[in-house]
Amino acid sequence: MTQVDRGTLSLGAFEFECGESIDDLEIAYEAYGEFTGDNAVLVCHALTGSQHVADVDRSAWSRDDAGVDETDEEGAEDDTAAQTAGQARAWWNDVVGSGKAIDTADYYVVCANVPGSCYGSSGPASESPDGGPWGTEFPPVTVGDWTRAQRRLLDALGVGRLHAVVGGSVGGMNALDWARRYPDDASRLVVVAAAARLDPQCLALDAVARRAITTDPNWNGGDYYGGPEPENGLALARQLGHVMYLSKSSMAQKFGRRSAGRDAHREAFPSDPAASFFPYRDVESYLDYNAANFVDRFDANAYLYLTRAMDDFDLREGYESDADALAAFAGEALLLSFTADWHFTTEQSESLAEAFRSSEVPVAHHVVDSDHGHDAFLVEPENVGPPVADFLEDGVGGRAITDTAPAESDGGTDTEFAPVHSSLFSR
Amino acid sequence: MTQVDRGTLSLGAFEFECGESIDDLEIAYEAYGEFTGDNAVLVCHALTGSQHVADVDRSAWSRDDAGVDETDEEGAEDDTAAQTAGQARAWWNDVVGSGKAIDTADYYVVCANVPGSCYGSSGPASESPDGGPWGTEFPPVTVGDWTRAQRRLLDALGVGRLHAVVGGSVGGMNALDWARRYPDDASRLVVVAAAARLDPQCLALDAVARRAITTDPNWNGGDYYGGPEPENGLALARQLGHVMYLSKSSMAQKFGRRSAGRDAHREAFPSDPAASFFPYRDVESYLDYNAANFVDRFDANAYLYLTRAMDDFDLREGYESDADALAAFAGEALLLSFTADWHFTTEQSESLAEAFRSSEVPVAHHVVDSDHGHDAFLVEPENVGPPVADFLEDGVGGRAITDTAPAESDGGTDTEFAPVHSSLFSR
Repeated sequence: MTQVDRGTLSLGAFEFECGESIDDLEIAYEAYGEFTGDNAVLVCHALTGSQHVADVDRSAWSRDDAGVDETDEEGAEDDTAAQTAGQARAWWNDVVGSGKAIDTADYYVVCANVPGSCYGSSGPASESPDGGPWGTEFPPVTVGDWTRAQRRLLDALGVGRLHAVVGGSVGGMNALDWARRYPDDASRLVVVAAAARLDPQCLALDAVARRAITTDPNWNGGDYYGGPEPENGLALARQLGHVMYLSKSSMAQKFGRRSAGRDAHREAFPSDPAASFFPYRDVESYLDYNAANFVDRFDANAYLYLTRAMDDFDLREGYESDADALAAFAGEALLLSFTADWHFTTEQSESLAEAFRSSEVPVAHHVVDSDHGHDAFLVEPENVGPPVADFLEDGVGGRAITDTAPAESDGGTDTEFAPVHSSLFSR
Repeated sequence: MTQVDRGTLSLGAFEFECGESIDDLEIAYEAYGEFTGDNAVLVCHALTGSQHVADVDRSAWSRDDAGVDETDEEGAEDDTAAQTAGQARAWWNDVVGSGKAIDTADYYVVCANVPGSCYGSSGPASESPDGGPWGTEFPPVTVGDWTRAQRRLLDALGVGRLHAVVGGSVGGMNALDWARRYPDDASRLVVVAAAARLDPQCLALDAVARRAITTDPNWNGGDYYGGPEPENGLALARQLGHVMYLSKSSMAQKFGRRSAGRDAHREAFPSDPAASFFPYRDVESYLDYNAANFVDRFDANAYLYLTRAMDDFDLREGYESDADALAAFAGEALLLSFTADWHFTTEQSESLAEAFRSSEVPVAHHVVDSDHGHDAFLVEPENVGPPVADFLEDGVGGRAITDTAPAESDGGTDTEFAPVHSSLFSR
């Protein structure tokens, strides 16, 4: 069984990019496998993820209870021990573990909860020096703060240079920040379903989500701990998130316009008599069910903090271009994107690939032809795993990896841009 | 100057599709031009539009103050008389009027505020027999109720068979319902940026928008008239609407990731100290500004009622297929769609065109290659006007009309599907 180290490290005083400091930054982390000096892989979690990336110490796991948290499939209600304790479900259990793509038998895999989140690392819900929760007095956090905190954590764990940094969604932005900020610290970079920056459509939806939280009277300026929490606002924010994680085609397949069954609860939100003439649809039931689960496990202020960090990330900030920001990176990069992802698009990944190429960083942009939206990076481990595993072992020349660049010497690449379908791993 | 008739007609008892009745349905309408017996054109408004489709009685109008309401461009603050009175701005002033595409010198143009709305027709905000506002005791309304009320209104105005029914967005669904419900009552049907039904992605966003309203404590089960109104909830719903009306490309062009100017008001919604570290972006400023305007002119319960009607519309309901629903229609149809519209997609319009074709109804599907999203039907009158004008005059053989169907005898059609760009009317 894979060795697991779970804990929270006090890293001492930490100055955030905003200039404010706290006396003691705590970082909750999990580390899987054995560190051999050159086999460390840092995995960066997505917006509402946690350090709990895998359930490697369960004596047995089945596909049924390895459901990823981002989708919170209805029916997958069996809790892991971690979730029972208010944690997110192991979010990449199909990709990380013994014998899996990021193989904990080979690699020492570290995942840390980012500052500003609510799974044990310092954030708005954690205790301030005054004794009560920080609330919105907690300093604003940036993706750069996440990276710097991860660097401090790895130092404390005795890890210097990493074999790889891997991240999905805003975790992919976190990984890009590693390449920019610590260009000599990782040999390989895996950026899954991410981008150099959010587009204005996603900025708008994130802004609406934050307004849903801050207009909930229970938010109370962020000071709600111990009292009624802004559950309605956080639920709405999460529902918007779910729409962003799905695609038109996946929603058509998953829900269509069907009515929910008679057992479905329609009472999750206030309604009125006139509403009852119309069906309560599967898609509403899905959103309501998952939002109700989410508000039990996530902190509303943390949602504000983390979406702001995501919105604020811009790879070229402080540089002349994305390429300039990446120019010093001394490793190789794999970018994965999914054709139906409209949160972080294939076009954005391709633009990132061009930035790597023009900086002469070895890069492969592997496009997965998929009907799933952004969720694909979580729900299609069969498409994510093989290129990631091969890249970790062999770099951009890995066998399962395709690239969007024009074919060069070895014939392992496609000349066509999206949609590229890797026939080796078709579902 | 075009003759205008503005008024509100009491149509007497009306039974809604839900089975509930009211004693007196009032319908507010505007009618432009002179009725000659066979020149009536019914225009169906979009979700939050009104009967005020054009400002034909203004002695002069300029492009600057003809801004369409759906976009509420910042800076276009000069009010028309109607808007000053709490009305929506003339929403299709570039398309309807003397010498315009729907020429009020030729046609008798009627537009009616739909039941359930808040611009003078009976709805949740209007007076119930008890004296107070109906609130959510008003019967639920459907698109079919809109059509039946319009039929009653036209009867009262002495209009029998229409030359055309024209509608955009959910107004296009309203037009489709005319073809299904009264297949002999219109010679021509113009369906702009609409579909046979909403897809689940849009159903989801509408559901979230309604939850934003009903979770606003001021909504109070729909009983808020005379007290504080659910402005925050309605503002959030409208902000979601705006995102649905725009496209990624139009948002990139319009806002990018720019910060709003120093004059921008950030106080539209509650915020916290940590937020001030991050920029207040143009896209947020746009959403906040327009939402603030919207809550001044629209009723939150009406928003619930009208989105439910839109979500519920399904052309094939009660029929075997869309084609079956349209089979009895005795006229010709023009469908307009816009390539960047993700609210009502070109693919949905094409599916509708196929339904007309398989029912052997003469149809043209005119696709406009556009960067604008759904808003294109309002903000690109130069692309909407010519095919509509030619269709009203000459039917599907109109000169400015392209079609997605394979070319037939007269060479006036394109063989390629989207994007079709009509070079005659390029911007």
